[in-house]
Amino acid sequence: MVKTTERRERQREALVLAAERAIAGRGLAGLKARELASEVGCALGAIYNLVQDMDELVLRVGSRTLARLDAALAQATQGRRLDSKEEASAQLVAVAQAYCAFARGNLQLWRTLFEHRMAEGAIVPEWAIDEQMTMFRYILAPLQRLQPQAGEADLVLLSRTLFSAVHGVVMLGLEEKLVAVPQRELDRQVERLVELVCVGLASQGQGG
Amino acid sequence: MVKTTERRERQREALVLAAERAIAGRGLAGLKARELASEVGCALGAIYNLVQDMDELVLRVGSRTLARLDAALAQATQGRRLDSKEEASAQLVAVAQAYCAFARGNLQLWRTLFEHRMAEGAIVPEWAIDEQMTMFRYILAPLQRLQPQAGEADLVLLSRTLFSAVHGVVMLGLEEKLVAVPQRELDRQVERLVELVCVGLASQGQGG
Repeated sequence: MVKTTERRERQREALVLAAERAIAGRGLAGLKARELASEVGCALGAIYNLVQDMDELVLRVGSRTLARLDAALAQATQGRRLDSKEEASAQLVAVAQAYCAFARGNLQLWRTLFEHRMAEGAIVPEWAIDEQMTMFRYILAPLQRLQPQAGEADLVLLSRTLFSAVHGVVMLGLEEKLVAVPQRELDRQVERLVELVCVGLASQGQGG
Repeated sequence: MVKTTERRERQREALVLAAERAIAGRGLAGLKARELASEVGCALGAIYNLVQDMDELVLRVGSRTLARLDAALAQATQGRRLDSKEEASAQLVAVAQAYCAFARGNLQLWRTLFEHRMAEGAIVPEWAIDEQMTMFRYILAPLQRLQPQAGEADLVLLSRTLFSAVHGVVMLGLEEKLVAVPQRELDRQVERLVELVCVGLASQGQGG
């Protein structure tokens, strides 16, 4: 019994890794259950003994992507202090640039975090929600330093707004849309956007 | 000869309107050549006497979407003056909010402007590029008022950065992503983002 569980666990891990390679190579559209089954060496139907459905498989790949993103953001903020508004601004810039670098270096896996939609009627499981939300701690702490009088709900809103803004610049830029910031200017413009917002926040904080 | 040309022109218009309805209803994935042909009342192959390929058809639909977006932004800026930095900021907020309202009211057609990718190797025709780029005039004029010393190339970069940032907030918000700004807060957060950037720009302009 223990052996069966262990074997299943190993097979599940192999399946998630195969799915990750498929998405990294060809994007979410490149994920084919039949190919995965043959790569992992099991029958097509047996995949659904390892994961409930393709949604779960994509979420498990996303979980690995988010863990690496978390590590990248942790590294970008390591040893930083938040004693002044300048340090808080510098941390927000560092986090945004680390986000941009991660997206560029993990383009298909990163896109999949946003492109994936659950099957009709299915809900995102609690663990997957937690994994996404915990990422905001890298932004919330410096934002609080910049807006010490703001309430928690307001800081959460602000963190989502700032994240979405940086995400928009990075996403359109990496897709090389006509209207986007050109790739070679991307790092500089992400920095500029975050700095402008920080100057705005710091000056509001003084007024409030 | 004249009659044939006229008839073709009418048929092309009917085809573009049918494609627009299909995209508005079911998104870019809902565009099926076979269904369009039956709706317009021509053979499947005859579609390609009216447009070169599906890319051209989607671009022609996009052209109509952009014309309506342009009208919405024109209305949002009508009668506004740019005599002060406050007026310039107010115009940028008005343009961003009109953009948000347009996206909400034309969700699938607006998404298609960004989701559509040309077939491998095909280039976007000059007229379609011009139509996208001309939209930036609503942002460039107030940005110049906020940063009078900035050169043109720099203002163009800044306009793309600000556009992409607002687009990111609107896009994630309207897709109701977990990490997004909630829909009911969207207008207010778009306003807040643009205001923060404007405060940052105005204070930089004073220093420069």
